[in-house]
Amino acid sequence: MTVAAPSEPPRDEAGLLAALTRYERALMADDVAVLDELFAPGPATLRAEGTGVLVGSGHIAAFRAVRGGAPARWLRRVHVRWTGPDAAHVVAESEREHGAGVQTQWWRRDEDGWRVHAAHVSGGPVAAPVDPGAADDPATWRVRGAPLVAGAGSGPLAGVRVAVKDLVAVAGQRVGGGVPAWLEQAPVEAAHAPALQRLLDAGAEVAGIAQTDELAFSLTGVNEHSGTPVNPRAPGRVPGGSSSGSAAAVAAGTADLGLGTDTAGSLRVPGSYCGLYAWRPTHGAVPVEGVLPLAPDFDTVGLLARDGATLRRAGTALLAAPGDRARPEVLLRSRTLLELASPETALAVEAALAALAVATGLPVRDVDVPADAPAAWTAAFRTVQAAQAWASHGAFLRAHPGVVSPSVAARFGAGEAVGAEELTTARDVVARTRAWLDDLLAQGWLCLPSTSTPAPSREAGPDGFEAARAGTLQLTTLASQCGVPALGLPWGRVGDLPVGLCVLAPRGADAGLLALLDGLGPA
Amino acid sequence: MTVAAPSEPPRDEAGLLAALTRYERALMADDVAVLDELFAPGPATLRAEGTGVLVGSGHIAAFRAVRGGAPARWLRRVHVRWTGPDAAHVVAESEREHGAGVQTQWWRRDEDGWRVHAAHVSGGPVAAPVDPGAADDPATWRVRGAPLVAGAGSGPLAGVRVAVKDLVAVAGQRVGGGVPAWLEQAPVEAAHAPALQRLLDAGAEVAGIAQTDELAFSLTGVNEHSGTPVNPRAPGRVPGGSSSGSAAAVAAGTADLGLGTDTAGSLRVPGSYCGLYAWRPTHGAVPVEGVLPLAPDFDTVGLLARDGATLRRAGTALLAAPGDRARPEVLLRSRTLLELASPETALAVEAALAALAVATGLPVRDVDVPADAPAAWTAAFRTVQAAQAWASHGAFLRAHPGVVSPSVAARFGAGEAVGAEELTTARDVVARTRAWLDDLLAQGWLCLPSTSTPAPSREAGPDGFEAARAGTLQLTTLASQCGVPALGLPWGRVGDLPVGLCVLAPRGADAGLLALLDGLGPA
Repeated sequence: MTVAAPSEPPRDEAGLLAALTRYERALMADDVAVLDELFAPGPATLRAEGTGVLVGSGHIAAFRAVRGGAPARWLRRVHVRWTGPDAAHVVAESEREHGAGVQTQWWRRDEDGWRVHAAHVSGGPVAAPVDPGAADDPATWRVRGAPLVAGAGSGPLAGVRVAVKDLVAVAGQRVGGGVPAWLEQAPVEAAHAPALQRLLDAGAEVAGIAQTDELAFSLTGVNEHSGTPVNPRAPGRVPGGSSSGSAAAVAAGTADLGLGTDTAGSLRVPGSYCGLYAWRPTHGAVPVEGVLPLAPDFDTVGLLARDGATLRRAGTALLAAPGDRARPEVLLRSRTLLELASPETALAVEAALAALAVATGLPVRDVDVPADAPAAWTAAFRTVQAAQAWASHGAFLRAHPGVVSPSVAARFGAGEAVGAEELTTARDVVARTRAWLDDLLAQGWLCLPSTSTPAPSREAGPDGFEAARAGTLQLTTLASQCGVPALGLPWGRVGDLPVGLCVLAPRGADAGLLALLDGLGPA
Repeated sequence: MTVAAPSEPPRDEAGLLAALTRYERALMADDVAVLDELFAPGPATLRAEGTGVLVGSGHIAAFRAVRGGAPARWLRRVHVRWTGPDAAHVVAESEREHGAGVQTQWWRRDEDGWRVHAAHVSGGPVAAPVDPGAADDPATWRVRGAPLVAGAGSGPLAGVRVAVKDLVAVAGQRVGGGVPAWLEQAPVEAAHAPALQRLLDAGAEVAGIAQTDELAFSLTGVNEHSGTPVNPRAPGRVPGGSSSGSAAAVAAGTADLGLGTDTAGSLRVPGSYCGLYAWRPTHGAVPVEGVLPLAPDFDTVGLLARDGATLRRAGTALLAAPGDRARPEVLLRSRTLLELASPETALAVEAALAALAVATGLPVRDVDVPADAPAAWTAAFRTVQAAQAWASHGAFLRAHPGVVSPSVAARFGAGEAVGAEELTTARDVVARTRAWLDDLLAQGWLCLPSTSTPAPSREAGPDGFEAARAGTLQLTTLASQCGVPALGLPWGRVGDLPVGLCVLAPRGADAGLLALLDGLGPA
């Protein structure tokens, strides 16, 4: 959101973002008086659109007086480039129904506050980002039906087609876990997992069972048995995992909702890579019964969707109790966390965060995260996760050697090797991280990149995938080990590639976190 | 071009405009290396177009590498707003074939020079500004043919339809002079005026004879006998005069070229009001034989056209000798002259001048014009003009009382009242002005507003028209009394209304002045 060197004079970011909020709200309300007030008076003010320029605040006001309002739009990225302590060049990207737009505004602050001195607007229709053909590959779906399980026919999720991750029990089907040897020995499930049942009760239907990374112990979306699902939003790139098939199906439009799991980022990562809204609930807020475990201290069942309104409705259905619906007073931003992402990703996430701040009217506050903390919390998490993963699946893997790929086998092997003292030390770090984050989230909701980069190339190879995983785990494992809910907003762009902005809320604040989506897109 | 207070630090306008020139030329040549160099390197640089934004110089360069060049475009207005001594927000408007575009650029200067840190581009087709129906009214045409006089069928002006002002002899027709009583007593002309003959020899045809203000002694385009021609570019506004019908016909597309006269601005003013290219030649460079005189010391025969290429070809045909084709080294700008126009008009003309500077690569230099000089030279001109006008038509008017409207009669009456001493004093001022301007034009070509405002409302009334005329005469009479050529470029916009930028060159430099149009539009 800023390209300033630290030595530059302080900037009134709060004032600028508040002015942007006021502008957007006035535009949507066609509040001409406020819009006129926010444009600098005088003959030199500029407004460009399409093929022409209006020069002078009088001509701009005259145009506005007869325009009759602007079409509804929702900010997705607000790129702020400071041109001085009291001036900024702002480029805001927005979505509309079936379209998108860009506005450039040059803002200056004078004794009367922040005002636009020049603006440039463009926009138009955009092709639907959905390619129904892209997700027909067997790398995405293990089982498909028409539907596989019918919905109740009514309810808030009527007509919503769910891609169920192949860790979740579907009555009459086996759980495959992304490993053919697991599928072979799996029993036919007698009942739906309770989480799935809640979606069905709300009217959703099961479109099919979607592929997962092997035993969910990967963030890449590469499965050597079933293949790598096509990422419809990032051709040539991996979809992310382990909820890879659910993400690919939803991104391709062959499903509307992905029901998946997130232990270390398995919903947030494919959400980020495939441009989807992702929700990891508070640990324990959604039942994990009937779901193949990985590391029970951290396992959650959550959702992916193309739009915020569907995610919000489905998340509400999944939550047993509405819980805390409080709204934060401030959005928190940490330079340390942003710098865990690539510079391009950090800029993209900052632009998405500014859009969130403007759209919600919430101010942004910078907070300190010690530079060495992420490496420490990631290492501790990985130790506990590996030990629990071995506890979950060690017996099976010992009985079936060679049934998972070497990289996954190595992760389980690391878990087998964790000693008791090492585990205790790691749990202490987790506990301290949790206490620290609880304090932080009492101040406001923490915003950070969902992943350290956009989706890696399918050709990145094991080393490339491992590097992406290691970078991203420093960001994802914070919520995982602290049990707090996380919402991934697919608003960042690095070139054409999506990348997520992740918002962490206090434990139990899932309903409030989902409510953040209200007004941020078509209902 | 600037909104700076005088106390602000000096600004590198020359460097910025040179960078803009380099950018435009590289864009037209698809010189990707230069374009890449002119965009600031790094991940924060922005380029917006349509529905999306590219973030980062690498992504912008990748886009540019495969774009394969941009469509030809010609700058018309470059609005420069300084955001600091080393930074400017630039909004440039351009024309394309059948379209137009706008680009916003935020430029900053660092140790490597001026670079773009953010850009926003839009554009598209524009409706043809021509309404063939609008000029069928008898206020525009006195006589029309199909054609009235056929052309030679070949030559550089083949197919060009000329609207001949009703002061110019057309063989077989009478000259009407905008006064029915004059028409009644006028003989049928035996031959075309030599200026018209030159156009016909070059292949043009005569579409008809277009109305004029009464005896050409007005700048408004209102004629109480024939009416006020529709100004197709400015509905509800006067077309300007006295070449009013020619301008209206060309603007409406029922003619391609207006052959008119300019004594005190009678081509430049309707050109400015109707959005046309206008050329007043060096006094004496185009023969005035066969043309009804007004004030022979200042009378010229010149042209109006919708596009620069037609004006350039027709002007070349009109000039007996090619003359001096030298190009200036600099464009001169005077704050005093700009401030004779309304603030909106001055800003519009500054934007047009910046576009001319960028398109030609010529630097802009500010020159001093004493604040009291324009009033003095205007008064002197009006004295001499009125005296000569009375000498031209006093006998007729005395013999035909009441045949012209009161405002025109008053101007002639003022001419009758000019005494010998007053005339001598006025001629001295004219001579001094001429010497001063000759010195100035030896440095570069002087750029000023064609008119002090865009076209006044048709409802402005005698006082409104007189005020517009008085303001504009301070600008137009400089070229008139000095006999220098003037080129009106219809590039300024005040709201939707056109307003001209006028370029004055040394006496005899007509060919060079017309050559300035090369490369400034479609050939």
